[in-house]
Amino acid sequence: MSKPDKPNNDSIKKLLQERRKHQQQSNPENLVSKLLKGDKKALAESITLIESENPDLQKAGQQIVIQCLPHASQSVRIGITGVPGVGKSTFIESFGSFLVNSGRKVAVLAVDPSSERSKGSILGDKTRMHRLSVHPDAFIRPTASSGSLGGVSRKTRETIILCEAAGFDTILVETVGVGQSEVAVHSMTDFFLLLMLAGAGDELQGIKRGIMEMADTILINKADGENIKRANLARAEYKNALHLFPPKENNWIPKVETISALEDKGNEKVVEILDSYFNQVKVNGHFDLKREKQHLHWLKETINEKILSSFYESDGIGELFSDLKQKIISGEITSYQAADRLYEFYQHGK
Amino acid sequence: MSKPDKPNNDSIKKLLQERRKHQQQSNPENLVSKLLKGDKKALAESITLIESENPDLQKAGQQIVIQCLPHASQSVRIGITGVPGVGKSTFIESFGSFLVNSGRKVAVLAVDPSSERSKGSILGDKTRMHRLSVHPDAFIRPTASSGSLGGVSRKTRETIILCEAAGFDTILVETVGVGQSEVAVHSMTDFFLLLMLAGAGDELQGIKRGIMEMADTILINKADGENIKRANLARAEYKNALHLFPPKENNWIPKVETISALEDKGNEKVVEILDSYFNQVKVNGHFDLKREKQHLHWLKETINEKILSSFYESDGIGELFSDLKQKIISGEITSYQAADRLYEFYQHGK
Repeated sequence: MSKPDKPNNDSIKKLLQERRKHQQQSNPENLVSKLLKGDKKALAESITLIESENPDLQKAGQQIVIQCLPHASQSVRIGITGVPGVGKSTFIESFGSFLVNSGRKVAVLAVDPSSERSKGSILGDKTRMHRLSVHPDAFIRPTASSGSLGGVSRKTRETIILCEAAGFDTILVETVGVGQSEVAVHSMTDFFLLLMLAGAGDELQGIKRGIMEMADTILINKADGENIKRANLARAEYKNALHLFPPKENNWIPKVETISALEDKGNEKVVEILDSYFNQVKVNGHFDLKREKQHLHWLKETINEKILSSFYESDGIGELFSDLKQKIISGEITSYQAADRLYEFYQHGK
Repeated sequence: MSKPDKPNNDSIKKLLQERRKHQQQSNPENLVSKLLKGDKKALAESITLIESENPDLQKAGQQIVIQCLPHASQSVRIGITGVPGVGKSTFIESFGSFLVNSGRKVAVLAVDPSSERSKGSILGDKTRMHRLSVHPDAFIRPTASSGSLGGVSRKTRETIILCEAAGFDTILVETVGVGQSEVAVHSMTDFFLLLMLAGAGDELQGIKRGIMEMADTILINKADGENIKRANLARAEYKNALHLFPPKENNWIPKVETISALEDKGNEKVVEILDSYFNQVKVNGHFDLKREKQHLHWLKETINEKILSSFYESDGIGELFSDLKQKIISGEITSYQAADRLYEFYQHGK
């Protein structure tokens, strides 16, 4: 065995120099100035700070977000959902590449608090997007974070701000159509795309009720080969179905299109739809209105969550709650009496 | 002018006797024993106590609810919605009469916190239901209460318990398809009926997004005269549309039928649908499961509302909130920072 090199004065000096250099780089001001110039490494490093569980790093992350705020909001934010297997990653690879090739700067993010990787094609695998991931005008951030939906949502929303400040004009936020994360993504994006497959059978099982109504456009994917006919039929069916639904507040009528992400077909149509949507809502004021509503929504969500957590986590509430729950189910008391007792206990307990 | 009669000893005695008699009648125990025998006057009086704003009377009302609880829950609870003009009152009159004539005991309630009478056919007008209102096995309670949705919902839920204890086996809860009250009614009933009109044009404007997905059955009303063809067409369209939607948790596939409430047509079909629904969910356990979920839902709703109100109503929060809201919109701070400040202020303010 060879002896490990003993550190001499020179190597220690070198080590200290590198550490200092690294600290300077990670210094929030430094990161921000680089980020604003579009430096993807500084962007990635800043996001890591936001995602950190370390309070000091988190604080540094917050500083960066604040400094980026005046430079954000110049992008379009697009939510993308669909059950595993529908081809979300393939679509993002194809559509994202189409966008960067037509001069856009594209950031791809994901909200997936459950992180049930086994279930399918959740973003987090850059190798699934090899064309896009190597393009200088694309930035892909895999789902790094786990934790509560609230926490993950916060991180993604702040990441959007950083990406916008770094010059990305199109933000794609992916989620998987099986849970509550759609609602979160819907309320942080300007436009909501739902990917579906032809054939309204088993494939639909995974889509939660209510998600179809959030869609601004439905794309029937895998419209290729022998599937084209079925896809066109499905398109007609969905168009009819959406037509029966009440109109959206902003007067936008959801569109239905067939695409083949695998064969790079349909991207022009999607861009046309997006252009027509954003023209419409920017003219009728609903673009700004929606963003303002979203800000307020997140403020309320966050403060309500804090207030309610402090209640549910206070001493004795959990036990009393399950106790009263049983009493309600067995018909001894009403829900309202139970709520009164909980509230009294909380007020006196403090 | 004739002099008014001066009260003599006899008339004072009589007055006192009557008052005492009235107090005895209004005594909760007395009311409950009458109510349990199906006395509609005692039922109406008890509901008035529940609805009262007077704390003492309210308390008496709560006592009655508690005593009724063991006798409740033996009914089916049906929510009915649809925009003004769709014919809800006519339907309830026709369908309710059909039910009582086939041996059921029917109570008709309403949730309408907004009380925008001008907008249309909101229940509260017994004259619109003259056949039903005079039937011994029917009980109609007009929307007496105004106030917050939470308050109105509580009153209606407690009224359901009283009606069930009084022997009513079918509770129809009407609401109007233009607001949040649908969600409230949906979460206090076992089955949700949506009334629609043929022609997917203007009539739809009033139905809020998301309400169609809550429906367990859609009834296309006014399928009479020249309208029959259009109604059948609409039925086929809605059937197709619903078929494209994700299945419900309890595996029930929503039905679509045409009816003519005006001509008393279609009531048998509706009863068949209800029977098949209740057979299914009572066998697969979803009937009890849904009611348990509803209990828990109302417990959480009520306690969360209490906790959050005590936050939003505490000194200085309102001002700070609007201040921070402006700062968020102008891009000075993030929603999360604003929430932090609100929380800190609240913690220190106490």
